Order: sequence, then structure tokens, then C-alpha cells
Amino acid sequence: GFAKVDHHRELRQGYPEVIYCAGKTVDQVVHIVDMIYKRGSNVLGTRATKEMYEAVKKMHPMAIHNEAARTIVLQQQKIETGKGYIVIVTGGTSDIPVAEEAAVTAEILGNKVERVYDVGVAGIHRLFSKLDIITNARVVIAVAGMEGALASVVGGLVDKPVIAVPTSVGYGANFGGLAALLSMLNSCASGTAVVNIDNGFGAGYMASMINKL
Amino acid sequence: GFAKVDHHRELRQGYPEVIYCAGKTVDQVVHIVDMIYKRGSNVLGTRATKEMYEAVKKMHPMAIHNEAARTIVLQQQKIETGKGYIVIVTGGTSDIPVAEEAAVTAEILGNKVERVYDVGVAGIHRLFSKLDIITNARVVIAVAGMEGALASVVGGLVDKPVIAVPTSVGYGANFGGLAALLSMLNSCASGTAVVNIDNGFGAGYMASMINKL
Amino acid sequence: GFAKVDHHRELRQGYPEVIYCAGKTVDQVVHIVDMIYKRGSNVLGTRATKEMYEAVKKMHPMAIHNEAARTIVLQQQKIETGKGYIVIVTGGTSDIPVAEEAAVTAEILGNKVERVYDVGVAGIHRLFSKLDIITNARVVIAVAGMEGALASVVGGLVDKPVIAVPTSVGYGANFGGLAALLSMLNSCASGTAVVNIDNGFGAGYMASMINKL
Amino acid sequence: GFAKVDHHRELRQGYPEVIYCAGKTVDQVVHIVDMIYKRGSNVLGTRATKEMYEAVKKMHPMAIHNEAARTIVLQQQKIETGKGYIVIVTGGTSDIPVAEEAAVTAEILGNKVERVYDVGVAGIHRLFSKLDIITNARVVIAVAGMEGALASVVGGLVDKPVIAVPTSVGYGANFGGLAALLSMLNSCASGTAVVNIDNGFGAGYMASMINKL
Amino acid sequence: GFAKVDHHRELRQGYPEVIYCAGKTVDQVVHIVDMIYKRGSNVLGTRATKEMYEAVKKMHPMAIHNEAARTIVLQQQKIETGKGYIVIVTGGTSDIPVAEEAAVTAEILGNKVERVYDVGVAGIHRLFSKLDIITNARVVIAVAGMEGALASVVGGLVDKPVIAVPTSVGYGANFGGLAALLSMLNSCASGTAVVNIDNGFGAGYMASMINKL
Amino acid sequence: GFAKVDHHRELRQGYPEVIYCAGKTVDQVVHIVDMIYKRGSNVLGTRATKEMYEAVKKMHPMAIHNEAARTIVLQQQKIETGKGYIVIVTGGTSDIPVAEEAAVTAEILGNKVERVYDVGVAGIHRLFSKLDIITNARVVIAVAGMEGALASVVGGLVDKPVIAVPTSVGYGANFGGLAALLSMLNSCASGTAVVNIDNGFGAGYMASMINKL
Amino acid sequence: GFAKVDHHRELRQGYPEVIYCAGKTVDQVVHIVDMIYKRGSNVLGTRATKEMYEAVKKMHPMAIHNEAARTIVLQQQKIETGKGYIVIVTGGTSDIPVAEEAAVTAEILGNKVERVYDVGVAGIHRLFSKLDIITNARVVIAVAGMEGALASVVGGLVDKPVIAVPTSVGYGANFGGLAALLSMLNSCASGTAVVNIDNGFGAGYMASMINKL
Amino acid sequence: GFAKVDHHRELRQGYPEVIYCAGKTVDQVVHIVDMIYKRGSNVLGTRATKEMYEAVKKMHPMAIHNEAARTIVLQQQKIETGKGYIVIVTGGTSDIPVAEEAAVTAEILGNKVERVYDVGVAGIHRLFSKLDIITNARVVIAVAGMEGALASVVGGLVDKPVIAVPTSVGYGANFGGLAALLSMLNSCASGTAVVNIDNGFGAGYMASMINKL
Ligand SMILES: Nc1ncnc2c1ncn2[C@@H]1O[C@H](COP(=O)(O)O)[C@@H](O)[C@H]1O
Ligand SMILES: Nc1ncnc2c1ncn2[C@@H]1O[C@H](COP(=O)(O)O)[C@@H](O)[C@H]1O
Ligand SMILES: Nc1ncnc2c1ncn2[C@@H]1O[C@H](COP(=O)(O)O)[C@@H](O)[C@H]1O
Ligand SMILES: Nc1ncnc2c1ncn2[C@@H]1O[C@H](COP(=O)(O)O)[C@@H](O)[C@H]1O
Ligand SMILES: [Mg+2]
Ligand SMILES: [Mg+2]
Ligand SMILES: [Mg+2]
Ligand SMILES: [Mg+2]
Ligand SMILES: [Mg+2]
Ligand SMILES: [Mg+2]
Ligand SMILES: [Mg+2]
Ligand SMILES: [Mg+2]
Repeated sequence: GFAKVDHHRELRQGYPEVIYCAGKTVDQVVHIVDMIYKRGSNVLGTRATKEMYEAVKKMHPMAIHNEAARTIVLQQQKIETGKGYIVIVTGGTSDIPVAEEAAVTAEILGNKVERVYDVGVAGIHRLFSKLDIITNARVVIAVAGMEGALASVVGGLVDKPVIAVPTSVGYGANFGGLAALLSMLNSCASGTAVVNIDNGFGAGYMASMINKL
Repeated sequence: GFAKVDHHRELRQGYPEVIYCAGKTVDQVVHIVDMIYKRGSNVLGTRATKEMYEAVKKMHPMAIHNEAARTIVLQQQKIETGKGYIVIVTGGTSDIPVAEEAAVTAEILGNKVERVYDVGVAGIHRLFSKLDIITNARVVIAVAGMEGALASVVGGLVDKPVIAVPTSVGYGANFGGLAALLSMLNSCASGTAVVNIDNGFGAGYMASMINKL
Repeated sequence: GFAKVDHHRELRQGYPEVIYCAGKTVDQVVHIVDMIYKRGSNVLGTRATKEMYEAVKKMHPMAIHNEAARTIVLQQQKIETGKGYIVIVTGGTSDIPVAEEAAVTAEILGNKVERVYDVGVAGIHRLFSKLDIITNARVVIAVAGMEGALASVVGGLVDKPVIAVPTSVGYGANFGGLAALLSMLNSCASGTAVVNIDNGFGAGYMASMINKL
Repeated sequence: GFAKVDHHRELRQGYPEVIYCAGKTVDQVVHIVDMIYKRGSNVLGTRATKEMYEAVKKMHPMAIHNEAARTIVLQQQKIETGKGYIVIVTGGTSDIPVAEEAAVTAEILGNKVERVYDVGVAGIHRLFSKLDIITNARVVIAVAGMEGALASVVGGLVDKPVIAVPTSVGYGANFGGLAALLSMLNSCASGTAVVNIDNGFGAGYMASMINKL
Repeated sequence: GFAKVDHHRELRQGYPEVIYCAGKTVDQVVHIVDMIYKRGSNVLGTRATKEMYEAVKKMHPMAIHNEAARTIVLQQQKIETGKGYIVIVTGGTSDIPVAEEAAVTAEILGNKVERVYDVGVAGIHRLFSKLDIITNARVVIAVAGMEGALASVVGGLVDKPVIAVPTSVGYGANFGGLAALLSMLNSCASGTAVVNIDNGFGAGYMASMINKL
Repeated sequence: GFAKVDHHRELRQGYPEVIYCAGKTVDQVVHIVDMIYKRGSNVLGTRATKEMYEAVKKMHPMAIHNEAARTIVLQQQKIETGKGYIVIVTGGTSDIPVAEEAAVTAEILGNKVERVYDVGVAGIHRLFSKLDIITNARVVIAVAGMEGALASVVGGLVDKPVIAVPTSVGYGANFGGLAALLSMLNSCASGTAVVNIDNGFGAGYMASMINKL
Repeated sequence: GFAKVDHHRELRQGYPEVIYCAGKTVDQVVHIVDMIYKRGSNVLGTRATKEMYEAVKKMHPMAIHNEAARTIVLQQQKIETGKGYIVIVTGGTSDIPVAEEAAVTAEILGNKVERVYDVGVAGIHRLFSKLDIITNARVVIAVAGMEGALASVVGGLVDKPVIAVPTSVGYGANFGGLAALLSMLNSCASGTAVVNIDNGFGAGYMASMINKL
Repeated sequence: GFAKVDHHRELRQGYPEVIYCAGKTVDQVVHIVDMIYKRGSNVLGTRATKEMYEAVKKMHPMAIHNEAARTIVLQQQKIETGKGYIVIVTGGTSDIPVAEEAAVTAEILGNKVERVYDVGVAGIHRLFSKLDIITNARVVIAVAGMEGALASVVGGLVDKPVIAVPTSVGYGANFGGLAALLSMLNSCASGTAVVNIDNGFGAGYMASMINKL
């Protein structure tokens, strides 16, 4: 076949390969889902279209679609969640799809997730009113577009690792997420590391790896 | 002469031309200071070296040098400060030179200035403990390098115009102030406008214009 | 709900949260309009599509759509305009949508607005023939794409604060508004500050804050 | 004083403020070291010049200088290292200063550190011969300049969180570290997050936070 | 006609002009195919749409379409393949179209081609299991998007020239292939040179020139 | 009206305002065409859609559309062509639309134009075979995308002013014409100046101004 | 020798090769000056250091140094100036070196030059008071840093070709002249073309070519 | 030791590791030279300062310094040159250091090298007068700064692989070699691949690999 699915990864890293559906045909996605499923693993597809989901569902009626997150999940093994929880905060309403991608990823990898959405720094009291749930998490994922200041503010308030996710939300001199990305890379708050623009999956995966320690 | 000092500016805009000393020879600076002084105006030179100051001082012993701000001030007319005050906040210690350029500019243009330095978002309680002095100002100047998040946080807390000044403080992906600049341009807080990287002068001037309304 | 509308903002900043409709679903917009309306505030939505407006109108027949500005306005409280007026100048015809967003924003926030459109520096006599109306304003908003020179020329002629708005009008090496943005940030005219590319809302809001001093 | 040291940080985040010495005067550094020391905390200064170190040493003879790392460490409290160790890998010899900054930071924050230097992908057998020490770590820091491929290769081999640090090592189209930064942000290996170019400190701090979980 | 086909090229460079179909009308493509065909040469069109192919096929039923590669091939002269083979490796499934453009180009220019797809560094054992076929080639083409690390890893393992092709596969801070491009230009492995983003044709052509030596 | 057509321009610059149709509504275009026509001038519209042309034609049946150039021309005054001619060269077939925009502009402004298309440096003999017609022109316009080398080669061969027009033709690291733009700005051939990417109009206008001297 | 001076250029283009001294050793410069001088031509060296000039002067005492312009001129043939004059305008005092490079170049190529310096748009009346001398020129060179608006304003006022020269004067978001460059490329005034940042030589050469028509 | 010299490389790739001296201390360079020398290999150091050379020479008097190329060569094994030769062309005099780095590299790797310097496209007849020596080479290295057009012109004339090396020669909008780099990546001539800006070493190495086939 066209694809060499990395089945070895489950041994090496504890999780099977996750399917990045963008730029694949529906047939390719269905085929790869099937290959992973047959090996007995849970399956996660990201950046999946509705059409891909429909096609997968025909073969695997148990498949679940999170429309906002654009994910396909096909679970056959029990997921055990371990210690504590991961909290995901967003600056605005428009950052939710990226946040949901992170949430779905973290959940299928066996983590409890708390969502604290739309608490950007323009109205910082919204953040402070949720401080408890944030500071009690083991890992924080901060998702923000525009100027991405949320990551710095959160990073300065908690003593837990913060995964910052810049989003492409905004316009003009946000340059497709560059503004938030640079902002987060230059954060004056210590204990923050950054993933690619809109990369909810990467943040969820990294947070899970940390939480599993 | 080489320079056509814009004497008409005092009539048109209420303030004489300010001398941007960078890229000028010591002789040119002394000469322009003199021309403006002889017209009876107060003189402000920015980005002045110590050497320029020494040369000006020889002719005009009253000239004052603010070393951090890199300014030369030569005052002959009384400066009347009007309504309220302008507050200048900085994220860190390294932003102080830019802040001082803004302060000196605003002061010679006839404004009372309050300084609130080193209150960046990595330790946000420092900002909150100064909130009174900030919210009572008529205009706020927020000076910050690295990710520039201070401007957004301040902008979300006050109901006064905020002039944001990105600084080149930082390294790596700050790209000489670009990170803070983009951050401030994309601020999710309303009521903020931005001047050039390290442009304390421009911020002080704009704040003064606003405060004089 | 998905959104934590910042109702507290009206107390803190004197104006309620403005709805940035881009990237929201029609349902989300209708819902947020309703929440703000029910608190008794005037409502402003920016970057609204016609479809969003139709949906809002069904519930609130008084809602008004400015097609060029892409705004929805739902007014229930009397708007009192205070001192003087804000003037909005544009370089060309294509900058008008951004200018209108600024105008609608400033008006609902309680300001008188004068429009001076299509007076770019390619035919500078058009600008000079309107100089009176510009110099008599309390605040100037200068909206221009391409090379954005209008802001510098206006800034050099008036003794009032100028809010410069770069637009994405142009092509090629305008790089989506970057040329005008950099031009305005580097303006040789003092008393100018800049907002994001195409950010008419931000300019109108900032101008209002200044005019209300 | 000019600086508002964030003493509260130790309570909030478990570690006191770290001094970023770049852009500060020798006097300012000495003064801040002293303030933190007097509160009873261990002191870490980064980006310190030899001159700064000499000045600090005069007051605090116990101060230690790591020349490659450009750090000043002044320890008065016992440092207890907890679980496991952090491994730091570099692509080449020239990345060592950044790696050492990370190492010193992680060590003073109470972590055991293993160093695996000069194992870049141009001679990948060098990496494989050290695989044991890498895969047994709890957290990995991957430091690389030029094309930064090391982070992806390491990320694909371990099941532990990887903090990637791009360095400015290289020339031409490395654009001061941009090439390695973008490379690491786009890593095809999951479980990687990135800090600023040359930001050894940030990587060491983040790794410590993770290792302390 | 509108086009001055470079018939002289076959004499000068041994191969006729290749038709870059993007930005040409269907009529233009058909016309140029015909002109080259009538001179007795084999014809290669790249970036061809299905519609273009259909139109060409009507006149030349022997024309062959490689849908993934987006190529049209019209062969009338026997193609003799010479020494050894060119190997084409890709990082992922989504890089295949670019790889196929290279393959088709190299084949019509008279080279044997081996394909080793989806062996990116996230699962590096997939690459090692194919090492024989790679190291035995005379020329290697390495096609990869995202961070493009594959080129460096391959370059470090073989003693043959490597042509690196960055692809635009990815999102966010890949900036349309810039991340992979910079990565490949800064490769720490010697013996690598780079062609434009997504330029499978250029890589196939260069590899052929080298293989024909 | 919304637009302040610069009728004064004909007096000041010898030509009336040219209509940049992009970003205008069909109604606006028709209206402005009419205003200029009624003043007795010839009318030129650039970046016009077919729809705009149809609407203009309804009112002014004499209007002429050049589809490649995307221009509308409405001529009522005789055009006198003066001295010599302007030559327009292009690198490839895909650069022709930009070249035609330049040609139409130069022609309505009263210049004789010679077209030498598809003579890029990949097959430089095509250029040399046309050298006579190029060197005898009074002004040269060189239109090229991709790497834009044509402008340098032509600039080195002629002793006449060369207007270089970078086009957005190409893909990948051409970055929408940036590669050709930078190439032309850095030309090692003297006597070359550059206009915006794809700005055929600007080149035709500049060439005409020069030719009219 | 290391250099292949293009003696043929005088035949081909009417002027001999001009020496770009930057990045050459003093010996190389002296040697090339000599080669050109011996062929009987006038010699122009740009970007020359004082040291280069001293060395040239030893051999050719007639050599003249313009310190601001950084040029060496060695004239042996009479220079005949033809029709009209070229006017060079600058925005500020700091742009004068670039302007002088243009002036010296145009003069040795046989043109009369008028200088109108320090007339930037911040005080636009300075420009208007010199309008006569500008509009009567045959060619205009507009030299400006910061936002480069001068080129657009001048371009809108004259009916002669304008060569725009962006300078690197400024700081921060001027990005070494990029702001002025983009501004000038996007000028809304027709009849403007642009040369490289700080390229006074190129502007003087182009203006001369135009003026000689 | 600090460095893990890749001795295995000689087996794997036929050549030992080449020492990139930039960013290394004199001691480190001496030490690595010694390690490689003791294994019996020829040694090549690039980007070496005079000081490094002096130190190496003390231990190994046979060491040779090419000042322009900034290389140290220490030969103990006979170098056999194989088939044909590599030709290196440069656009100007200032590109020679990069060209020499390529030449020295290719020579120690066992290739005959021909140098054709200062034949840039501004005086293209210089190139044509050397065409024989260029077209008879087995591999071409084209070194050029500014707009880098030389690579395209050469690429269009020969039927051999061309390695293009952009240099940082130039100023302003050359952006440190970016202009030449983009130009070469977008070359309309087929059979060209590109190495990093100023990377003479990489070009020489790649050319050698090709020539050894
Ligand atoms: N620090 C500064 N940053 C930006 N502009 C300045 C600064 N100081 C003075 N200026 C402006 O620079 C202009 C003088 O420029 P110039 O004619 O080149 O000396 C004056 O109009 C000032 O308004
Ligand atoms: N056109 C606009 N441009 C930028 N910001 C806006 C605009 N319209 C509204 N906003 C701001 O966007 C914020 C709401 O963002 P969100 O929570 O994502 O809906 C509000 O605080 C507004 O101040
Ligand atoms: N996919 C491709 N990418 C880049 N260049 C190509 C491609 N296909 C063909 N070419 C080149 O494009 C040139 C034709 O350009 P044009 O005259 O604009 O049609 C030919 O010389 C080919 O060598
Ligand atoms: N001038 C050069 N440019 C780029 N890479 C080089 C250069 N000289 C040597 N190298 C490579 O740099 C690597 C050594 O890097 P390092 O381990 O940091 O010393 C070797 O593998 C060489 O192949
Ligand atoms: Mg919100
Ligand atoms: Mg501080
Ligand atoms: Mg108009
Ligand atoms: Mg090494
Ligand atoms: Mg795969
Ligand atoms: Mg063609
Ligand atoms: Mg001035
Ligand atoms: Mg030369």
C-alpha cells in the first residue's frame, strides 16, 4: 500500500500512530483506520472532514465524530485515566475548535480533561474566577489567537507546566497565527513551551505524556 | 544650511520640531539646537549621545541630559502642566530607557507623569498593587518587550486610551521587537493603539496630544 | 454556554463587550446579541454577514445593518454625543468599508463623526480643500491602504491625535496591508498611533475613548 | 528601586525570580542578586558577563560562574533532587553553551542532569550509541541549530516529553535560528514542544516543572 | 503564436522544453504539446489538470495521465535507461504527489526509479528497513514537508548526492513549505542540494542529469 | 458621491485619473467611467472584470475590453503617438497578462508599443534573436516571474532605461512574486528601476512619462 | 587578474563600468581604478572608504572624494551636460548621503543636478515652497527613509518620472529600509519606479539614462 | 571530550568529517584537527581564522591556509583526481571567497577545478567568452550575490548539473543573501539545485559527490 503505518510506535511510545487526515483521500483514511483498528488499537483521526467520518462510520458504526474538533475516534480498548487532570483554557470563543482537538486527543490517551473557555485577558476577571480549577491541574494547555497574551498570564499564575497553543484566530497583522506564536515563544513567564499554530493535537499529546509521568 | 528646521511647526502643532539626533553629526545637532533655541522655543533632542550633550552644554550650560532616556532638554520657557497625569508602565527593568524617553517628552510638552516600572505579567500582582495610580491617569503608556502582553492586560483593566510601545528587549524569536509589536497590534483589549518599536518619543508625544484635549 | 460574555466590561470600561462575529456561527451571534440586549445595553456586532443580520433581525426587528461596514447595531439606550467630533479620512474609495466600521463604532459609543473620503495623496489638493473640517476635529482617524502615506501627511498638518488604520487594499508587495502598516508605524509625523490592518472597530473605539476625555 | 523583584513568585511557583542579566548594568545585577539572597533563596543569573560575575563575587564569594553557560549561581539552601533525571542532547559542539544554560538551570531547581553532546543526525550512529541514557530519562531536552532535525529524530524514538531548543548556530538561511525554530515547531514527531531560540533557561525550567510532577 | 517553444533546447541540453501547464489555458497546452510532438520529441507536461489531459488525449490518444503527479506524458521515441537507478523517498503519504512528479520526470528522461514512500523520521525504523535500496542508488531524491528532517537523516547515511525537495505539506508555522525549505538548506549533512518547494519536476530533472554523467 | 475623482490631474500631470477597478462595485466603476468620460477625457480602467465591462458597454458601446490585460478602454480623443517606441519583453507565456496591461496603458497614453514575449533566460537565444527590436526602443519594460533574471540580462544589454515588472508567476518559494521583486531590486545591471508585483499599469505609465520627455 | 572589468560596457551602454568598492580590498580598488583610467575613461567608485581614496589619490592626485556620498571621482574627459536638470529631494537630513551618491553619479554622467533636501511630509510647507524647482526638472529623484511618504507626495504633484530611493534611515519597524521600500513600491501616485534601499548610485544612473533621451 | 568526531563517516561516506571552525575555540579546533589527523585522514577546516591556522600550524607545520577561502588543509594522503573537472563561476569579484571555499573543498576531495570568476550578467559577453570551459565541465558551481541571475543564465546554457550558491554580497533588499537564494530556488532553468547562502563548502562537497559517480 501507499502508507507504511508505524505499528511499532505503540511499543516504542505507548500509543499507536494518529492519523493526520488533511491531504489524504477518503479512501486512504478509511484504509488506515482499518489497519490500525485490526491491530487492536484505539484509533484517532484529526483534521477529518464530515465525509471522511461518514465513510469510516459505514465500516465501524462505533466511530465518533467531534465536529468542532474535526476528530474521528474509534475506541475498542478501555481507556484508563490516571492521576489528576489536564486543564484547557482558551482566550475566546473562536479558539474552541483547537481546544477541542487537544481535549479529544488527551482523553483518548487516558487523561481527565477540564475545559475553561473564553477567559481571555480583555476581561481578566473571567480568568481569575476560574483560578482554582486551573491551579489544581497537573498540566495546563493555553489556547489563544490574536496576541496570545493568555499564555503569559496563565504561565505567571500557576506552578505547573503550560503548553501554549497559538491559533490563527484574528486578521491583518496576526499573519495567520504568527503574532500569537511569537508572543508565546517570547513569554516572560517561565515554564511554558509552545506547539505549532492550531496544533491542538500536539498540545494534547504532549500534555498527556507529561501527565503520565 | 543642510537642515530646514520646521519652525512653522510650533504654530501649526503647538510644539517646535524635536531633534532626532541619531545619524546626525555632533555639529549638526549643536547647530539645530541653536537654531531652535534662538527662536525662543524649548528644545528637545532624542537619541543623543553623551558627546552630543557635552557639545551642546558648552554653548548652553542649562542643557540637561537624561542618560537613560538619551535626551537633551534645553528649557527657556515655563512649562505649564494641565489636567491630570499620564502614567507610564513597563514590563521589566530593561524597558526603562524607552519609558524615560516617553516621560521626558511628555514632561517638556507640559504634562505631569507617573512612572510604574517593572510590573510585567510574569508577576501580575505587582501590576494589581499599582492599579489605582494606573486607572486614575488620563492616558496610559504601556512599554513592554518580549511578548508585550502587558499592553493587553492593562488595556483590559482601564477605561482610558492606552498607547502601547513595543521594545526590542529580548532575543531570538523576538526579532528585534517584532514579537511585541505584532502582539500589541493584535491586542484583544479595545482602546489601544501602537507606536514604532522603541519609540518612547512618539508615545510621549501622542499621549501629550491626547492629554491636552 | 460556550461564551462568557464580559458583562462586567460596561462597569469597568463604560461600554459593553462588542461582538466580533467572524468565525462564529449564526446561532452563536444571535445568542450573544440576545444576552447583551437583555442586560439593557446597546449592542454592536462587527464583521457580520448578511445572514447573521437576518437572523438577528427576526428576533430584534430594530436591528440595523450597515452593509459596507458589515456591522449590526441594536440600540435601546439613548446615545448622547459629547464634545466636538471625530473626523475619518480615507485615501481611496476601497478603504470605505474599514472607515465605516470605525464610524459606526464611534457613533454608537456616543460621538459625532464627519466623513472625508477619497482624498489620498495622489491628488493632494482634494485633501487641502477639506482641511478645515479635518483640523477642527478633536480626533482624526486616517484610513489608507497601498503605501498609507495619507496618515503622515494628515499627521503633519493637524495638532490633534491621529489614529492611523492601515488597510489591506492593494496587491503584490502590499503583502495584505503590511506595506501600509509599516509605513504608518514609521511615520515621520508626531502624534500618530496605529491599530491593526483593517481594524476600523479598534480605531473607532480608541478615538471615542480619546474624545470622551 | 528601579526593579520590583517578584518575591511572591517563590510562594506562587515554588522558585524565586531568576535574573535575566542581559541589558542590565553591573550595579543592577549586583543589587538584585543581593535582594534575592537576603530573602534566603538560592540565586540564578543568566546571560551574565564575566564582569557581572566578578562584581557579584566580591560581595558573595560563594558565587559560581559557568562560563560556557554564562550563569551565576549563588546557593545557600540545600538542593534536593527528586525522581529520575533530565537528559540534554545537542546536535553539535557549538550548541553546548545553550545546553549548559539549561543544565545549570535544571540543576539549581533540583534535578539530576545527564549530558549527551554532539550527536547530530549527520552521524546518527553517535545518537544510537547513547540511546539507553536518552530513553531512560524522564524528560528530554533537545538542543540543535542549523536544521534542528535532532529534535524530530529524538522525539520519534522516546516515549517521554521532549523540550526542543532551537539555537542560532549556523549562518545564511538559518536566519538567526529561525530555520531550527520552524523545523522544531513542525516536527512530525508527537510529544515535542518548543521554547525560544537559544533559550536554554526556559527549557531547563520547563523540564524541571515536568520532572517535579 | 503566443509561445516561443525552445526547440533548440534538445540540442543544447539533450531534452526538449517541458511544459509547465499551470497558468496556461487548455488551448495553449494542447497547442504546445502539438508543436513539440511534431518535432518528433517525447512530450512532458507538468501541473496539468484533468481537463487539459482530456483535450490532449483527443488529439493524441497515446497520451498518459498520472493523476497523482498531475503529469501528461506523450512518448514517441524509445526511452533508454542507463546506469543504476534513482531512489525517491518521502516522509509521509501526503508528499506522494510531489514524489510522483519527480518520478515521472526522471523516467521519461531515461532513468530507472525506485520509490520508498512514507518513511519519515517519526518512525525511523521504517527508513532503516529500506536502507539497502537507498544506499545502492546512484542519486537520492528526498521529499518531505513539515520539518523536512528526512533529508538530513538520509543525507547522513548515504554517500551519494541527495536532492532535497521541501513540500508544502503541513500547516501553521510551516508557512507553505518555508519550514522544510529552510531546514533542508541548513542541513548538517553534506552532499545535499535543494530545489523549490513542491518542485518534483526540478528534482527529477536534476537527478537525471546527475545519473546520466 | 462616494468618490472624489481627481479631475485636476489632467492639468497637473497631463493624463486623467485611471480607474483601479479591483475592490469597487460594478456600479461604482460605471459611475466613475461616466464622470471622466463626461469631462471629455479618454478613460482607462484596469483590473476590470468581464461583468464591469458589460455594464460599461451598455452605456458606452465604444468601450473596448482586452481580456488578457483585464482593461476597459473608452477613447473619445485622438491619441497621438510621439517619438520612437516602448518595447515590452516577457520571460514566459504566463507573464503575458501583466505585459498586456502595460501595453494597453502605454498605448492609450500615446505611445507605440512592440511586444517580445516568451524570451526568458532558460533559452537565452530566443532573446538574442530579438535583440535589434529591443535595443532600438527608447524605453524597455521587462516582465518576468519566477526568478526574474530577464530584467538583469536585458538591463546589461541595452543603454536605455529599463522598467522591471516582477510577476507572481511561479509557486513555492516565489512567495507571490517576492523572489522576482527582490531579484529585480538587486539587479547588477545599472539603469533599472522596479514597480510593484504584477503592476503592468505602473510600468506602462512610467515608460510613457519617460518616452514623452 | 581577479577582476574582468567590463570595458565593453562603454560601447554597449555609453558609460564605463562603475566600481562598487564595498567588499573589495584597497589594492583591488586601486587596481581597477587604474585599469579603467588607462582606457581613457572617467572613473567613478562608490561606497569607498577614506582609506581607499587616500590610496587612489597617491597614484591619481586629481581624484576627488565626496565624503558624504562616499564616492571617488577621477575625471579626465570633459563632461557635457545636456538638456534640463535632475532634481533630488530628501525627506530628512539623514538621507543626504544617499542623495549625494545619486548626485555625484548623475553629475559625472553629464547631468545638471539640483538639490532640495530636508523637505519631508512632516512639514509639508517646506516642500511646497520648493515646488517650482521640482516641477521644472526633467527627472525627479525622491530619497526618503522612515515611511517614505515623500515619494508619493512628490509623485502626485509632478508630471515627470520619479525615481524613488528608500533609505535605511529610521529604526525598529523600519526593518533596515523595508518600510520605505514597500511604501514606495505601493505608491498610489503613478509615474514612480523604485531602486534598492540606499541605492543612490542606481537612482542617479537611471535618472541620467532618462534625462539623456 | 566535548566533541564526538564522526570517524565512522569515512567508511560511510568516503570522506572524514570536515571541521566547521566558526563558533569553536582555537583549542577545540586544534584538538579536532589532531584527532582526525591521527586517524590517518586528510583534514579540512572551514571558516577558520588566521589565529586558528597559526595554532594548528605550530603542531602540524604542513598545514596550509587559503586566506580568501578561510580554510585550513592538512594533507597526508595522496589525493587522486578522477574524471573531468568541476568549473566554478562567480558573478563578481566579491563572491570569490565563497568560490574559493568550494574550490578548496572539491580539490581535497579529489577533483580537478577550473575557476571562471567575475563573469556576471551585467556584462554577459564575459560569460560567453568562457563558454567552452564551462560547457566542458562535468559539474558547474555558480556563485553569485545580489540578484543571483548568473545561475539561471548558466543553467540555461549547459547540459550538466549546476549547483547554485547564493552569496550575501550586496546590501539593502538583498537581505543578507535572501534575494539571491530565492532567485536561484525559482530558477526557470532546469537542472539546478541550491545550497545555503555563502555555503561554498556544501557546493564543493556536492559537486565532488556528483563528479565521483
Ligand atoms: N526618537 C524619535 N523617534 C522618531 N522620530 C523622532 C524622534 N525624535 C524626533 N523625531 C522626529 O524626527 C523629525 C526630525 O527628522 P530629521 O529631519 O531627519 O531630523 C522631527 O519631526 C521629530 O518629530
Ligand atoms: N472588528 C473587530 N476587530 C477586533 N476586535 C473586535 C472587533 N469587533 C469586536 N472585537 C473585540 O472582540 C472581542 C470578543 O472576542 P470573542 O470572545 O472571541 O468573541 C470583544 O472584546 C471586542 O472588543
Ligand atoms: N513543474 C514545474 N516546475 C517548475 N518549472 C517547470 C515545471 N514544469 C516545466 N517547467 C519549466 O517551465 C518552462 C516553461 O515555462 P513557460 O515558458 O512559462 O511555459 C520550461 O522551461 C520547463 O523547464
Ligand atoms: N562551511 C561549512 N558550512 C556548513 N557546514 C559545514 C561547513 N564546514 C563543515 N561543515 C559541516 O559541519 C559539521 C560539523 O559540525 P559541528 O559538529 O558543529 O562541528 C560537519 O559534519 C561538516 O560536514
Ligand atoms: Mg469572548
Ligand atoms: Mg523585572
Ligand atoms: Mg480615488
Ligand atoms: Mg560535531
Ligand atoms: Mg505516514
Ligand atoms: Mg515558455
Ligand atoms: Mg529635518
Ligand atoms: Mg566585476
